[in-house]
Amino acid sequence: ARVHEPRVKAVEYPVRGPIVLKAGEIELELQKGIKKPFTEVIRANIGDAQAMGQQPITFLRQVAQQLATIPELRAVGVGPHRAPPKPPPLLIACGAGCLTGAYSASQGVNCIREDVAAYITRRDGGVPADPDNIYLTTGASDGITTRLEPVYLLCGHGAGNMRAFDLAYSYALLSAVLSELGAVQVNYYLDEDNCWALNVQELRRAVREAKEHCDPKVLCIINPGNPTGVRVARVLCFWKVPGAALLVPESSRARPVPQVYQDNVYSADCRFHSFKKVLSEMGPEFSSNVELASFHSTSKGYMGECGYRGGYMEVINLHPEIKGQLVKLLSVRLCPPVSGQAAMDIMVNPPVPGEESFEQFLREKESVLSNLAEKAKLTEDLFNQVPGIRCNPLQGAMYAFPRIVLPPRAVEAAQAHNMAPDMFYCMKLLEETGVCVVPGSGFGQREGTYHFRMTILPPVEKLKTVLQRVKDFHIQFLGEFA
Amino acid sequence: ARVHEPRVKAVEYPVRGPIVLKAGEIELELQKGIKKPFTEVIRANIGDAQAMGQQPITFLRQVAQQLATIPELRAVGVGPHRAPPKPPPLLIACGAGCLTGAYSASQGVNCIREDVAAYITRRDGGVPADPDNIYLTTGASDGITTRLEPVYLLCGHGAGNMRAFDLAYSYALLSAVLSELGAVQVNYYLDEDNCWALNVQELRRAVREAKEHCDPKVLCIINPGNPTGVRVARVLCFWKVPGAALLVPESSRARPVPQVYQDNVYSADCRFHSFKKVLSEMGPEFSSNVELASFHSTSKGYMGECGYRGGYMEVINLHPEIKGQLVKLLSVRLCPPVSGQAAMDIMVNPPVPGEESFEQFLREKESVLSNLAEKAKLTEDLFNQVPGIRCNPLQGAMYAFPRIVLPPRAVEAAQAHNMAPDMFYCMKLLEETGVCVVPGSGFGQREGTYHFRMTILPPVEKLKTVLQRVKDFHIQFLGEFA
Repeated sequence: ARVHEPRVKAVEYPVRGPIVLKAGEIELELQKGIKKPFTEVIRANIGDAQAMGQQPITFLRQVAQQLATIPELRAVGVGPHRAPPKPPPLLIACGAGCLTGAYSASQGVNCIREDVAAYITRRDGGVPADPDNIYLTTGASDGITTRLEPVYLLCGHGAGNMRAFDLAYSYALLSAVLSELGAVQVNYYLDEDNCWALNVQELRRAVREAKEHCDPKVLCIINPGNPTGVRVARVLCFWKVPGAALLVPESSRARPVPQVYQDNVYSADCRFHSFKKVLSEMGPEFSSNVELASFHSTSKGYMGECGYRGGYMEVINLHPEIKGQLVKLLSVRLCPPVSGQAAMDIMVNPPVPGEESFEQFLREKESVLSNLAEKAKLTEDLFNQVPGIRCNPLQGAMYAFPRIVLPPRAVEAAQAHNMAPDMFYCMKLLEETGVCVVPGSGFGQREGTYHFRMTILPPVEKLKTVLQRVKDFHIQFLGEFA
Repeated sequence: ARVHEPRVKAVEYPVRGPIVLKAGEIELELQKGIKKPFTEVIRANIGDAQAMGQQPITFLRQVAQQLATIPELRAVGVGPHRAPPKPPPLLIACGAGCLTGAYSASQGVNCIREDVAAYITRRDGGVPADPDNIYLTTGASDGITTRLEPVYLLCGHGAGNMRAFDLAYSYALLSAVLSELGAVQVNYYLDEDNCWALNVQELRRAVREAKEHCDPKVLCIINPGNPTGVRVARVLCFWKVPGAALLVPESSRARPVPQVYQDNVYSADCRFHSFKKVLSEMGPEFSSNVELASFHSTSKGYMGECGYRGGYMEVINLHPEIKGQLVKLLSVRLCPPVSGQAAMDIMVNPPVPGEESFEQFLREKESVLSNLAEKAKLTEDLFNQVPGIRCNPLQGAMYAFPRIVLPPRAVEAAQAHNMAPDMFYCMKLLEETGVCVVPGSGFGQREGTYHFRMTILPPVEKLKTVLQRVKDFHIQFLGEFA
């Protein structure tokens, strides 16, 4: 074997794993004219909104078009699409670094980091954010991989000996990074019967388990389904360990459960509470001590600009020495793509009332969000009509994570194929219907339970077809393995 | 100390190191109105062409502008700026992945990889390139960091125990990555007296030295100043070690010596020879066995599009098992920015005679290249007029790496400040003239010799000022420490 490195071999990333490779093969076969019971593969495996037909927000694209004509027009938000005209902020704030054709500062363009900080301050009702704590990234996955890697390296006790404590219903990306780093990962489970709530008792159990292997250092929370302030505070109280860090992808991609994206909240009784805001309300003992890193990106939220690879990370209470090392490591990668940084700027600094672009922007934003809300309801309702499928309400984001009951004979058949039972199910679903979803085992699920993750991004009519196909398949599958 | 990880502490990246931080401080002081003997800092430390006033190539920006209006217009090279119109290649070849707002394949958009392969095939006079061996990257530094990391991990013998053999006049970025990986780095020196030629005898010496520490696995060559085919072949013969790999940033950034960028070759007696082409001429024993990875980016060459973060890596003879692992690791990062991929496509697929944009494109390209050639000559000539500075001819690229003679009293003064002598020199140069260059010690230089690296990117008149300031400073410095 040429591959000597067990850490690399151990990496798994189910969102783009074997089932997605199979989807690619099937697409090639369809292109070659091979007959299938379907005419196209529907990729409901990854939150890729525009690939599923969502239209870009016009304002963002108008500004991107202006930026492309640099150096004639050198600033985000200048030009016909933004009125009243403002002085060009990028030009003033960052000198040469404002050109889309030049490198920016490694941490990101200064005035964009200021805009991000202002956005977070507004989001958290005035709790201040410091631009110096903002790091622009190449999408959230870059933030979490190349930005987190040094954080782990720095907080841990040396490579191969890393201590990490991780992760509610494992966020698949983080699991992959942890494998690559050789860190110890311990999962905790969310409470499916309670709409995927985060249960502090379960966290305690997981920490006890973690302590058998390591000295847990990092707690990762995908800001959970229904983060009432009280629940967030209980998690934070629980986690007040000196020198330990909290990682919160507050609007992350691979959340298998109905997750509250910052802007994509559908349930009337849900609101987004940031961990940082709750920390600030718990007094200086918490707000000045708990290390927190949180992530956001242009791919998620209502803009769905995945190809731009824009994102940010906010860190608070990071030790100055570690911060210095982090900046140094980032400088080796030079800078995130400037167009992605600009897209991030537009996301945190959208048109406001009085600006020429405001009406259209608002219309488009609301259209995306109401459309997602409609599809969330549709998905929940249809899944719950199928015998053997049970789906929690989708309170936000763009994914469903329904539970499926698999008959014992199906589990045996899967074992005979050397596959996890839900992988076996999803592979058959793909081969027979063209619908590509991700098996729950890729995210971590309680022993003996099976799920899959499906995005709700296809247009309504197509989504109805998808759901109908899944329903028909499921009933037939139950019959086949009864 | 909070930083437990010696590998992270060991990372140094001088191109964006302490001297650049100092430059930022001075800029802030100037903004605050603090009086200095100069009115602006000139950042000649990094190859950032557009930050120095180089105009973008219009065609690239026109296509970028079209791309921003996706989904109305979904393909690179379609629209008024490209005639005769072609069928939209991106749309046909990659389905949903062609949208700038969607994720692409992890390895990069298929048809862009095909264009890159066609470009390499043309470059190498018909030696075929396989799109499957092309990996699009987020600039070359991303290629070398996140893409190389797995290559090292996979070819080595486990973390902390890595075997690596590296590097002509160390390419600063690679040194940083090697430190992060905990790999052993052994430098070899280029022959300054022979216009920075790569000397095979010196390579042998370095391998002997390497063998005292490790089992050398990787040889890195910045395709050197004057790569006649003969010289390249001798290096390749020398390096035919089973299971060992060659890394060639064929158009990389941080080359301290006059390096032949693929398109930026000024000397009449220089031509670009790719290692791959030479390998192909040496017979199957070489062309089918030597593992080779080479890099290119939109930042370098004549386009100077640093902010787009576009790049590619070509690998040949990579073991299929390693390739599989590499693709898996890339998938965790999802994909490079699509706008950068599109910029790469334009770079390898520029307008051709008969297309509407051709005349202007050619004019702009030739203007950039002749301008660089003029500045290369200017720099060489002026440096060689200064007593105590000696500069080899700049045969290509955008950097000068002049040697400076430092008086013993200056070396003592540097030691008293706990600085490398050339760092001491460059810091004083920055403080007294505002000119920011990188000390030679950041790249590796023979014991007792001193250099600095300076880009030749400022516009001609400004470059003359810079050179005059360096000259005046140097003479005054010699007087001060005589």
